[in-house]
Amino acid sequence: MIESPQPIEQIELPLGFSFSSVVAGIKASGRPDLALVECSPGTQAAAVFTTNRVVAAPVEVGRASLKASGGAIRAVVVNSGNANCATGREGLRACRQICQQTARMLSVAATEVFPSSTGIIGVPLPVGKIMTALPDLLSARSATKEAAGQFARTIMTTDTRPKLASALIRGRREAFRILGVAKGSGMIHPKLATMLVYLFTDVSATAAPLRSLLRHACDETFNCISVDGDTSTNDTVLLMASGKSGATLRDRAVAKSFRSALLEVCHSLAQQIVSDGEGIQHVVRLSIDSARDRNEAMQLARAIAHSPLVKTAWAGADPNWGRILAACGNSGVALDPARVNIFIGDQKVCSNGQAFKFDKEKAHQHLAGRTCDIRVQVGRGRKNLCFYTTDLTAEYVRINADYST
Amino acid sequence: MIESPQPIEQIELPLGFSFSSVVAGIKASGRPDLALVECSPGTQAAAVFTTNRVVAAPVEVGRASLKASGGAIRAVVVNSGNANCATGREGLRACRQICQQTARMLSVAATEVFPSSTGIIGVPLPVGKIMTALPDLLSARSATKEAAGQFARTIMTTDTRPKLASALIRGRREAFRILGVAKGSGMIHPKLATMLVYLFTDVSATAAPLRSLLRHACDETFNCISVDGDTSTNDTVLLMASGKSGATLRDRAVAKSFRSALLEVCHSLAQQIVSDGEGIQHVVRLSIDSARDRNEAMQLARAIAHSPLVKTAWAGADPNWGRILAACGNSGVALDPARVNIFIGDQKVCSNGQAFKFDKEKAHQHLAGRTCDIRVQVGRGRKNLCFYTTDLTAEYVRINADYST
Repeated sequence: MIESPQPIEQIELPLGFSFSSVVAGIKASGRPDLALVECSPGTQAAAVFTTNRVVAAPVEVGRASLKASGGAIRAVVVNSGNANCATGREGLRACRQICQQTARMLSVAATEVFPSSTGIIGVPLPVGKIMTALPDLLSARSATKEAAGQFARTIMTTDTRPKLASALIRGRREAFRILGVAKGSGMIHPKLATMLVYLFTDVSATAAPLRSLLRHACDETFNCISVDGDTSTNDTVLLMASGKSGATLRDRAVAKSFRSALLEVCHSLAQQIVSDGEGIQHVVRLSIDSARDRNEAMQLARAIAHSPLVKTAWAGADPNWGRILAACGNSGVALDPARVNIFIGDQKVCSNGQAFKFDKEKAHQHLAGRTCDIRVQVGRGRKNLCFYTTDLTAEYVRINADYST
Repeated sequence: MIESPQPIEQIELPLGFSFSSVVAGIKASGRPDLALVECSPGTQAAAVFTTNRVVAAPVEVGRASLKASGGAIRAVVVNSGNANCATGREGLRACRQICQQTARMLSVAATEVFPSSTGIIGVPLPVGKIMTALPDLLSARSATKEAAGQFARTIMTTDTRPKLASALIRGRREAFRILGVAKGSGMIHPKLATMLVYLFTDVSATAAPLRSLLRHACDETFNCISVDGDTSTNDTVLLMASGKSGATLRDRAVAKSFRSALLEVCHSLAQQIVSDGEGIQHVVRLSIDSARDRNEAMQLARAIAHSPLVKTAWAGADPNWGRILAACGNSGVALDPARVNIFIGDQKVCSNGQAFKFDKEKAHQHLAGRTCDIRVQVGRGRKNLCFYTTDLTAEYVRINADYST
């Protein structure tokens, strides 16, 4: 499991993107909180968003802009420290104002500037601070690995480390690259989208195939993770293709290798997000085997991953499999307990719904490790699913109970 | 809000029931862990059970027995310290053996003995210890308030205090009584049933009206509470009517007052369970207003009550209403955020989905109290619901992360 981000010097930087970051004064910490990506002319994009009914202003604006521009994109402006959510018409106006000003300064259309925000919900966006910082932000941009690394740090909130993953794909003629940058630590339970994730590639592509490839990659990666079961109001995954490499998705071989490289990059970012989950001690690789279909497997994985009793047992490295079985029973899946087997590491601990003699100390040792394996066989069909989740610790409570509004 | 149990000397003891408790050696603590209720001839019963697909042996046996006996009941045998769940055929055999032996000693039918178990899942029930303790258990029974109080203590697991509530109803001719005894502290998210709850009355009734009255009372009380969102495999509510008072449910006035007294007793027990939730600091009275129907109100209440981010904010007395709004957005209810209002105590904090100027210190003070009020108006219809839940504390994690298998 790739838990750590790629070191900045080892990342592959796709052609056609430049990055910059500044301190606008939104974060109380005084850390960089405003970032820009400029995309070269001709860049096409696709995005997926949160399914939360409460959506932030930048999600509304970004969705509408991408639709209006037919997938054309020239810049991304992201602020951290404020979600610009539950901020009403004022929030929408602030968001549009920032996009318009950025567009004017770059001489592009306002619908080609994609906005994002992450941070606290329900506090007015300090739009003045952002407008004031825009000239510095624009003049600082550069197409370097260092600037991309700084971009990854600027979009962090409760994250303890930046999250980057990249791939270099050598085609028959041209090589092309994918770079992914993500943020996310709490409120992690993506449904059809996740967190802030930016995916850059220099392959040439139109918006339609980008959308279908992105949807596929999200389903297989970001939708299979959960830290605390709370789905954010701001989740956004944005894939941008500059076309600067010369390789094109119209080439079947390129399309095939792009698809698998995109999956790999997303997979790494999803794992980095889980590994950096708020207060966690353990990453749990939860395998659901022999479900009837993917929905059912997902329903079981989520029921287990969201049970406070299961998650606290994991925090104590306690091989209390009865709580896992009880969570399966509560999932809404019409399972027959007598067909359920549970494994901790490589040991069977529950056979046909009953206790199975196992080495408790060995199971405890396995669960005490940084990454643990739990496998649940439900005996209903042929669908297997791998889901990544975490334990629930007193530290998570401490982080989120701080009186900090 | 009635948080504390009635003092033993003040409870109303229905005629026709005797109680006893012994130490069988199931609990490691050496505390009493085996209890008996004997019901006088002619007692009728109704029960509701957990909706978890994984059910404990006593739930299976108890359900079948009540059906076979047509609602006739003569005894209840409860052990704490072991759930007899995920214990397979052996567990069922052990449960039936205990019922048969008790029936033989009381000269009643085996189907008239109702079994219950509560404790750890997946550990074989120490049936030998229970069989050995049965003679002492039977000889100790007495129809006193002290014995009923000891019964309430014996069925406790992680509970910190016994839970009792009772009512005396003076009819036109005869007076009759209801006594309720409950246990429950963690794994509290009843769906259609809850915990171990025993309701005793000396009114005269057949099983059919008892079932419908019990169903109604559970829906309005035990189904409206949640500590951690985990539904137990052993939840059972059992209502027993001895008929010894002379009052009968066939009398309309009796039926009416019985219905409201039963609701009152169940309401008190449900609140006692929430107040004794594992590691909790605050009880939250969550009002969902203007939902389209009860299901929708319940869906919203549960989404809020099960959000770790909302619950940890409550632990910190943090008036972070954005997390409540985000949880509503994730509930699956197709609400319009622009119609949502949120109140903390008597202060409006969110108006039409946006921040509303409020006194943060006053809201913090309100949330720092033992009982807090949160009201969410969704503007979709006329259904209001009151739901009781708790915060999520580091102490909850500590209690449940102890490596104790």
